[in-house]
Amino acid sequence: MSQTATRVGARHGHSFDLKKYLETRTEAVNRALDAYLPPASTRPATIHKAMRYSLFAGGKRMRPALCLAAAEACGGNESAAMPLACAVECVHTYSLIHDDLPAMDNDDYRRGKLTNHKVFGEGIAILAGDALLTQAFAIAAEFRPTPRYSHDQIFRELTHAGGSLQLIAGQVADLEGEGRKLSASQLRYIHERKTSALLCCAVRLGGMSANCPAPQLKALTDFGHNVGLAFQIIDDILDITQTSEHLGKTAGKDTAAKKATYPSIVGLEKSRRIAKRLTNRAFEALKIFRGRASALEALAIYLLQRDR
Amino acid sequence: MSQTATRVGARHGHSFDLKKYLETRTEAVNRALDAYLPPASTRPATIHKAMRYSLFAGGKRMRPALCLAAAEACGGNESAAMPLACAVECVHTYSLIHDDLPAMDNDDYRRGKLTNHKVFGEGIAILAGDALLTQAFAIAAEFRPTPRYSHDQIFRELTHAGGSLQLIAGQVADLEGEGRKLSASQLRYIHERKTSALLCCAVRLGGMSANCPAPQLKALTDFGHNVGLAFQIIDDILDITQTSEHLGKTAGKDTAAKKATYPSIVGLEKSRRIAKRLTNRAFEALKIFRGRASALEALAIYLLQRDR
Repeated sequence: MSQTATRVGARHGHSFDLKKYLETRTEAVNRALDAYLPPASTRPATIHKAMRYSLFAGGKRMRPALCLAAAEACGGNESAAMPLACAVECVHTYSLIHDDLPAMDNDDYRRGKLTNHKVFGEGIAILAGDALLTQAFAIAAEFRPTPRYSHDQIFRELTHAGGSLQLIAGQVADLEGEGRKLSASQLRYIHERKTSALLCCAVRLGGMSANCPAPQLKALTDFGHNVGLAFQIIDDILDITQTSEHLGKTAGKDTAAKKATYPSIVGLEKSRRIAKRLTNRAFEALKIFRGRASALEALAIYLLQRDR
Repeated sequence: MSQTATRVGARHGHSFDLKKYLETRTEAVNRALDAYLPPASTRPATIHKAMRYSLFAGGKRMRPALCLAAAEACGGNESAAMPLACAVECVHTYSLIHDDLPAMDNDDYRRGKLTNHKVFGEGIAILAGDALLTQAFAIAAEFRPTPRYSHDQIFRELTHAGGSLQLIAGQVADLEGEGRKLSASQLRYIHERKTSALLCCAVRLGGMSANCPAPQLKALTDFGHNVGLAFQIIDDILDITQTSEHLGKTAGKDTAAKKATYPSIVGLEKSRRIAKRLTNRAFEALKIFRGRASALEALAIYLLQRDR
């Protein structure tokens, strides 16, 4: 366990069984997603098979887990947060399908399996992404408003994080930055949008499902922002230090595509230090929950220490 | 004027100035869309330029006009219907950008201008479509619920029409039907989804913005369904009978792509008769509005008689 992990463990005087937590949450999320999506046999079968292929390709369900854990920290329950957790996962999966296309990152593998367009062809892959994005909003409509948070606020939250100012802005800046020398602040701009925005949205939506008061929502926002930035730095580090086989996707792609990454700008060691500092800041934000945020803390440590 | 047009004119004993109606509505819709979208200079500028390029490429704004006209028929007002009219237009525009991509219909021209990917490249065109789809839901969130229709109902309406069971199902079936011999009923399946679903959604949303009672919503649904089917048959006829220059997009594409169309299955004359019959059925559905649906009637005639 890293220093950070040990510190957190000591602070709360208990160990949290993250493996079990993730197992049960992943199962629950998979069941819910399965129920929210049209069966694979629904006509036209091609599109529903393609949507399900990527949605059930073994994703780690980190965003749904963060969403559910945030709801729990705010005293909410899993079933209220579930539609929002699933909606975020659909947005995430659509963005991966489109990012993997030949016109974008041109990836053949994702999570150790062929990418959507390698199996179904580019036309269907584009449509499967479109359909998952649309489905995300259909699922979000299943959310039951709370006294503080109405349907339209939930939709604004999700469309903002997934839209042209955040998730898509990040992908555009990423595409445009290829082969160019970026400063650390330009890279941070990309990371904040490409990764942090949707992670942050996941925890905020979790809090909103639990009708959290404003100070808790602010704390979740700080937590999500910092964890999201750390997450992307770790991703960049793993792209350099791990094999494709281990990652289940093509390693070394950033270097090959001449993409700026934290390791390429500040080096591996400093990148690791930055990721740890961000994770510590994420922990600080959780103080307000007075020990009820063990799942969020454990997830943050896991995201920092993961090797794939 | 066709027989249908004359009959309708005679029935209501007045002439409707559709040209002026469309001019004022198009202006209002363009102003609203401009206000709903981030300015073209918003960082990253590429994506906002690309979104606006297709959204303001001279579209006829038929779906927004139908939405506003439906609201009017139900005694509602334009400003209440406007976010929904604009949301539908964003869904429509995203679907055109993606349909024109090389992996789909591979079109170079649309509305007399280069298609999005010809100007911005495939990667940005895919993202511009994604961003417009996301923006559609952000705009729909601006709708003010009425006693009968809540935010989540509006979202379900839009995600259903734009999703994998309707709009996207139609595009998939269209792609899969290329080069195959289709029956008239298989073709109708495609038309109902590819075209009719979103047109029907536009008029239904207009009615919902006016808090219309169930019988009016049913009437609008019948109207939209029939007008939508007629619309696509006319589109197929124009693809054969008009030049590319006149249409502003590549004519004869259906024949070149060996796509089944009504004219290819039942011939030009019978196709025209079917389109007229569908338009008549659309008129029948409007009886319930007792003369308050002049704009919807005029739009249906226009869609039947248009030559581009």
